[in-house]
Amino acid sequence: MKEKRTRTSAKAGLPPGSLVHIGRSIQSQSTIEIVRYNTEQFEHHTYKAAADFPSLPQDDCVKWIHVHGVQDTELIRFIGDSFKIHPLALEDIMNTEHRPKIEDYDQNLFFTFRLLTIDPQSALHQEQISIVLTQNSVISFSEDSGDFFNPVREQIKQSKGKIRTRGADYLCYALIDYAIDQYFHVVETIEDQIATLEENLFKNTEDNLLSLVRDQQRTIVAALRATTAFKESLSRIIYEESPLIEKTTLRFYGDILDHLVSIHDSLENSRENNASLREVYASQLSLRMTQTMQILTIISTLFIPLTFIAGIYGMNFEYMPELKTKYGYLIVWIVMLAVAGSLLWFFHKKKWI
Amino acid sequence: MKEKRTRTSAKAGLPPGSLVHIGRSIQSQSTIEIVRYNTEQFEHHTYKAAADFPSLPQDDCVKWIHVHGVQDTELIRFIGDSFKIHPLALEDIMNTEHRPKIEDYDQNLFFTFRLLTIDPQSALHQEQISIVLTQNSVISFSEDSGDFFNPVREQIKQSKGKIRTRGADYLCYALIDYAIDQYFHVVETIEDQIATLEENLFKNTEDNLLSLVRDQQRTIVAALRATTAFKESLSRIIYEESPLIEKTTLRFYGDILDHLVSIHDSLENSRENNASLREVYASQLSLRMTQTMQILTIISTLFIPLTFIAGIYGMNFEYMPELKTKYGYLIVWIVMLAVAGSLLWFFHKKKWI
Amino acid sequence: MKEKRTRTSAKAGLPPGSLVHIGRSIQSQSTIEIVRYNTEQFEHHTYKAAADFPSLPQDDCVKWIHVHGVQDTELIRFIGDSFKIHPLALEDIMNTEHRPKIEDYDQNLFFTFRLLTIDPQSALHQEQISIVLTQNSVISFSEDSGDFFNPVREQIKQSKGKIRTRGADYLCYALIDYAIDQYFHVVETIEDQIATLEENLFKNTEDNLLSLVRDQQRTIVAALRATTAFKESLSRIIYEESPLIEKTTLRFYGDILDHLVSIHDSLENSRENNASLREVYASQLSLRMTQTMQILTIISTLFIPLTFIAGIYGMNFEYMPELKTKYGYLIVWIVMLAVAGSLLWFFHKKKWI
Amino acid sequence: MKEKRTRTSAKAGLPPGSLVHIGRSIQSQSTIEIVRYNTEQFEHHTYKAAADFPSLPQDDCVKWIHVHGVQDTELIRFIGDSFKIHPLALEDIMNTEHRPKIEDYDQNLFFTFRLLTIDPQSALHQEQISIVLTQNSVISFSEDSGDFFNPVREQIKQSKGKIRTRGADYLCYALIDYAIDQYFHVVETIEDQIATLEENLFKNTEDNLLSLVRDQQRTIVAALRATTAFKESLSRIIYEESPLIEKTTLRFYGDILDHLVSIHDSLENSRENNASLREVYASQLSLRMTQTMQILTIISTLFIPLTFIAGIYGMNFEYMPELKTKYGYLIVWIVMLAVAGSLLWFFHKKKWI
Amino acid sequence: MKEKRTRTSAKAGLPPGSLVHIGRSIQSQSTIEIVRYNTEQFEHHTYKAAADFPSLPQDDCVKWIHVHGVQDTELIRFIGDSFKIHPLALEDIMNTEHRPKIEDYDQNLFFTFRLLTIDPQSALHQEQISIVLTQNSVISFSEDSGDFFNPVREQIKQSKGKIRTRGADYLCYALIDYAIDQYFHVVETIEDQIATLEENLFKNTEDNLLSLVRDQQRTIVAALRATTAFKESLSRIIYEESPLIEKTTLRFYGDILDHLVSIHDSLENSRENNASLREVYASQLSLRMTQTMQILTIISTLFIPLTFIAGIYGMNFEYMPELKTKYGYLIVWIVMLAVAGSLLWFFHKKKWI
Repeated sequence: MKEKRTRTSAKAGLPPGSLVHIGRSIQSQSTIEIVRYNTEQFEHHTYKAAADFPSLPQDDCVKWIHVHGVQDTELIRFIGDSFKIHPLALEDIMNTEHRPKIEDYDQNLFFTFRLLTIDPQSALHQEQISIVLTQNSVISFSEDSGDFFNPVREQIKQSKGKIRTRGADYLCYALIDYAIDQYFHVVETIEDQIATLEENLFKNTEDNLLSLVRDQQRTIVAALRATTAFKESLSRIIYEESPLIEKTTLRFYGDILDHLVSIHDSLENSRENNASLREVYASQLSLRMTQTMQILTIISTLFIPLTFIAGIYGMNFEYMPELKTKYGYLIVWIVMLAVAGSLLWFFHKKKWI
Repeated sequence: MKEKRTRTSAKAGLPPGSLVHIGRSIQSQSTIEIVRYNTEQFEHHTYKAAADFPSLPQDDCVKWIHVHGVQDTELIRFIGDSFKIHPLALEDIMNTEHRPKIEDYDQNLFFTFRLLTIDPQSALHQEQISIVLTQNSVISFSEDSGDFFNPVREQIKQSKGKIRTRGADYLCYALIDYAIDQYFHVVETIEDQIATLEENLFKNTEDNLLSLVRDQQRTIVAALRATTAFKESLSRIIYEESPLIEKTTLRFYGDILDHLVSIHDSLENSRENNASLREVYASQLSLRMTQTMQILTIISTLFIPLTFIAGIYGMNFEYMPELKTKYGYLIVWIVMLAVAGSLLWFFHKKKWI
Repeated sequence: MKEKRTRTSAKAGLPPGSLVHIGRSIQSQSTIEIVRYNTEQFEHHTYKAAADFPSLPQDDCVKWIHVHGVQDTELIRFIGDSFKIHPLALEDIMNTEHRPKIEDYDQNLFFTFRLLTIDPQSALHQEQISIVLTQNSVISFSEDSGDFFNPVREQIKQSKGKIRTRGADYLCYALIDYAIDQYFHVVETIEDQIATLEENLFKNTEDNLLSLVRDQQRTIVAALRATTAFKESLSRIIYEESPLIEKTTLRFYGDILDHLVSIHDSLENSRENNASLREVYASQLSLRMTQTMQILTIISTLFIPLTFIAGIYGMNFEYMPELKTKYGYLIVWIVMLAVAGSLLWFFHKKKWI
Repeated sequence: MKEKRTRTSAKAGLPPGSLVHIGRSIQSQSTIEIVRYNTEQFEHHTYKAAADFPSLPQDDCVKWIHVHGVQDTELIRFIGDSFKIHPLALEDIMNTEHRPKIEDYDQNLFFTFRLLTIDPQSALHQEQISIVLTQNSVISFSEDSGDFFNPVREQIKQSKGKIRTRGADYLCYALIDYAIDQYFHVVETIEDQIATLEENLFKNTEDNLLSLVRDQQRTIVAALRATTAFKESLSRIIYEESPLIEKTTLRFYGDILDHLVSIHDSLENSRENNASLREVYASQLSLRMTQTMQILTIISTLFIPLTFIAGIYGMNFEYMPELKTKYGYLIVWIVMLAVAGSLLWFFHKKKWI
Repeated sequence: MKEKRTRTSAKAGLPPGSLVHIGRSIQSQSTIEIVRYNTEQFEHHTYKAAADFPSLPQDDCVKWIHVHGVQDTELIRFIGDSFKIHPLALEDIMNTEHRPKIEDYDQNLFFTFRLLTIDPQSALHQEQISIVLTQNSVISFSEDSGDFFNPVREQIKQSKGKIRTRGADYLCYALIDYAIDQYFHVVETIEDQIATLEENLFKNTEDNLLSLVRDQQRTIVAALRATTAFKESLSRIIYEESPLIEKTTLRFYGDILDHLVSIHDSLENSRENNASLREVYASQLSLRMTQTMQILTIISTLFIPLTFIAGIYGMNFEYMPELKTKYGYLIVWIVMLAVAGSLLWFFHKKKWI
């Protein structure tokens, strides 16, 4: 949490439509990648500054403008003006902590959602992706400067699947689908982790188990929040049938929804399993504590009667016939061993030891 | 979990519509069974390869194509092309971990759901069944190569019930109905198991009781997930009244829904009973622990006052009149027995022993 | 549970529409009672076999056919054919474990629900009642051969209320109303039982209290399941306004719904109270356990310091001035009593004893 | 619970429409109060018997007939006949344990709800109020013979507010509003009580605290049941816009709904706070128990090592050099005090004492 | 809670439409601020009394009347009459404990909601804001006399953003947006506080931790109640599309809704985290208690066997060979140390110490 971070409250009091970057501050320059293609041609250019940005021809090509980094207010405003993106959408693009949603601005559809990735140490990494779909362009924004969508660009370049034969709505689908597919990694990593945690929990080899379980709980809740909101928006947008998405393409959006529902289900299931892990942890802990107390108490219980017997023959009565006999001491030892043995046998029969 | 298994994340990054088998890898060849029938005639053929597949005549017969095994990408694509099945449906057929659903692809209705069976050791076995219903054909897919639907084929062959007088929509119903009927075995096995577990729990004869209860919980949750999603899809499809299903047949689909609702209810009930078993287990455990501690403490408590009395007469005071008397020792014994007796009587009255 | 019982899974694999009796096997013959009435006339006949069944005249009389016992497949099929009852309805009539529902088969309305009675030992008894309402006939089926609906027949015979002036829809209402009225006994018995249990729980006079509470929980859940499903079906059927029920009669069905809602509310309330009883039981148990341990510990704690004092003067040092004094022994007793007294006073002040 | 009470099950088996009083039996005669008013005139009469009841003129005056007591079957039937009240409404009027509801009988609107009052000892008192609203009359029924609605009558008499200028629908609103306003007393009393209970709970001055908390829980649940059902009915009736209520008056009914929603919210909040009180009580109890055990154990733990030391020098070895030294005894005392001191210091540092 | 406060029940029994101030009594005079502006002009005046209130010209300027303080019944009635505000709205304005809502009074839209602020000690401060939106005026009411909306006035004055080019509906949006933006401070303060509490909880440095957690719970619940009700009202009002709000402005109201949903989500999340804190607290407490008992028991368990050994050689048998040997005493010491060492090693191996 030591990274620099602007929070939503920073915007309180500014007039509506003010563009302020909210979220992690990333020290790198924004870049813009432009891809133009139709069934015949394919072009790909990278620009570093808004000034270099070319005017795009009004042809039947699908145009995909991808902006890496959303911290540069000027650039975002420039892109927004060029493609007539609504000021409120621009605000949401720069607010990288916005909850996922899809909004229909008549001229264009605005998608914002989270890219979820999970590293081997099971820490969830979230990045905001925003996509604006217009008649024949897709403008996408990623928080980080990494080249996440490169595989999709390669698919277009190599004409894999039907992507070159279809419009901007299908490109937009392909981008979202590619991003949502990453969620399966997250879901499966969490499921594997639960299995491992459960095993360890019964072996109790790790001391920080509870903290791992609680970390996982946070990961699951975060993943669920990202999934739920986007799922609901998507389901609404599919129902409303925007004219920007062709009917035959809509079915593909339905397929994403299907994935989201299934991811959501798995996450809910993981959440319950995680809760159940915490329960098991608590009961294991309490069980172990009680067993400890039991063993300690058994030790005490064993010696207290013996001490009593020793106490008997420590009394100073003048007339105690046993004290005078030759084998008295031996017999007392035998008695004490017998008592100890009986108790041990009793404890054993009761399955206490 | 040692079986080979492909997971959903394996598909991340592939272009949409890529056919990849997901789920348990099964080492057996796919086979295809074709049944053609109307009120007069009945034909049944089995094929091993897509190449052998005959061209089916365009007559009024109902055609039922059943594919055993969904790992063969080429075969699935061939079947998909022959019957104009949507690429997304083909993807779902090959993804044997897909959640149950019914989708209306205008030309055909696509059903995918789980066949649930339970073995005597109460392990739930899931298999995915997919069915495509077109105007006068039914194409069904089962994950395994076992001949699960044979009884339905026999019913057709022997003209039992009204199946020969009705169309593909009724055949499709008959297949689903036959599969869902298996759920009752699952529900009843779970219910019997709960009764047995509860009995054992109060007798406490088994050490692994909690693990059995937790296994059962997982079985119930899995069965519920399979049931819930299919129930919802079915209820929606009945409400929408697809033209592929005749109105008089629709009522039979409503009957399946009825069964699913009732299965769902029973499973929910079992889930609550299972949760209640875990509660009882926890409280039984805690009760037993406390009783153990109580008995141990009672033993200590009995001897501590006696040890004190012995301690008194172990003191070395020069002037202790009792020590000189002849019956002092005897009397001390009597006092100690009296104290012990009183305590035992007190504990007994309090119902502690 | 030793009674003979056929379970739903017995039907798996049979072709749809197969009539199989499911539920408790009852060793008695089915009988049929036929009542015909209008404002002027009233007829009542009892038949033992389907063969005796007369052909009913097509007049304006309301016909009420009541079948005792639903195990006789032939009889049920005969009745079904005579009154054109849908095969799926016949299946449900013979499945006495079917969940309550109302189904509109255009030609007739099919009701199936549970008759709940509770015996003085608070065991819930369930019986399935099925009713088919056609234009001017009511065909009712009861699982048992007891003459449950006799009071309604008497009302008709004696022309009590408006029943003779109204049609089959009102008769059907009267039957259901009469059956649902029995639920109030169940609800009130449960409520009384909770009051008794709560009282006993604080007195703790019975050992099997928890088992009584758990039995009651099962009774409540069963009653709730019977109520909920029927309530929902009834509410839907009222909303849909079937032409088989006149508008002025519909309001009476609304009154049954009112009763069901109120019964449902009371049962939900009882369920919460029952859960709260279990909570109280658990906390009472834990309280008592802890109090026991406390008293035991108090006894030990009282004697341990005294034993220490005795131990002091049991030491064998040569130079221990106290041992030589005349009143040493007496003083030690006084000190020990003082210590014991102080501890008891301290424990008392702390309200531990 | 010693008061005489008829329960709902008393009605089971009677033909529909049978008028039976259900609820507390109150030993007092019913009285009828009739108020007639318009902007100019105001009349008020009290009658003791149905026979005295005058025929009311058909003028533009608003007529308000209030009946104290609903046990007199004859009177209720007479009123019902006079104003054409539906038999089912009459049944509900006499069933003083009916859940709140509003029903639209075309000719009139029927309201039944509970008047909630709370006494200083925080016992909830419920009384059923039923109101029938017709074109220009309001017929209200109260269970008790107390003059609860007198303040409203005074408002009419003194022409306070707009009541004299408006119709029966507004009078009906004024009556309900006046009754619902009493709920705020209930809500606030409960909230104050929770604050007091919480304070006492941390001071633990009262022994019957848990029973008070449980009593309060019952009060809250009862108040919630009364509120929820009426709120839902009212919200439905406002949505349906009955012709009996003018549009400008409807907004006032919306205001009652507003109050009910806010009361409901507060009660839900109180319910959660009450549950949280019970939790706190349980944890306080367990905390105190554990502290007790801890102190007792500390006392034992302090003396056990000391007793051991004393035991050492109680041994009878011939060669024990310490026993012969002059200051041995003194040194042992010092050692024992040091051990005791160290233990006390250790316990103190650990914050156990 | 020592401040003077009028509660809702104070109004019970008064005729509907009676204006009574409910809530905290604030000792300061009401003031009125009037702002008039269009794209060209801007005017700002402050008045202290209703008498000074000017008649506002009927021009195309947007008029914003802000009233500080809602305790002055006369002033509220005067404002209400001047702008034709419905009596029920006036009642709600004066009831500063009203739950947030938006109501459409045809002539105007009435908003009432809570301004939430949180001080560094994390105490939530609530203030009620009411806004009446008419065709070209906004009348706003704040409970306190502080100049909360000054920044918005400054924005208008300095023509920041588009506020001067738009109508009253946009001003109303700007006011609500400014107020809701404050919620983010509350949400973030709560989230920070949870992080701090969790850290402290594991360090256990503060004694009043539970009370802080419970205070926070109350804060979260209060904030949630304020948010939920307003969110629902806003969502309904956006759906209904009042003619008072232009379509292009409606999108901005949608943006507020977006914020509210996101705030609501964060608060719900905080609520769960808070509950989880309480759970952790309870388990930490119980863990610590058990550890204490364990250490105490370990001490006792260590000395009880040693005391037994000492007891053995305290016996007075005449024939006890060990007593006579020269090194007997030394050997006993060695044995005792060995026993103690073994036990300590055993406890250590078991990880008890």
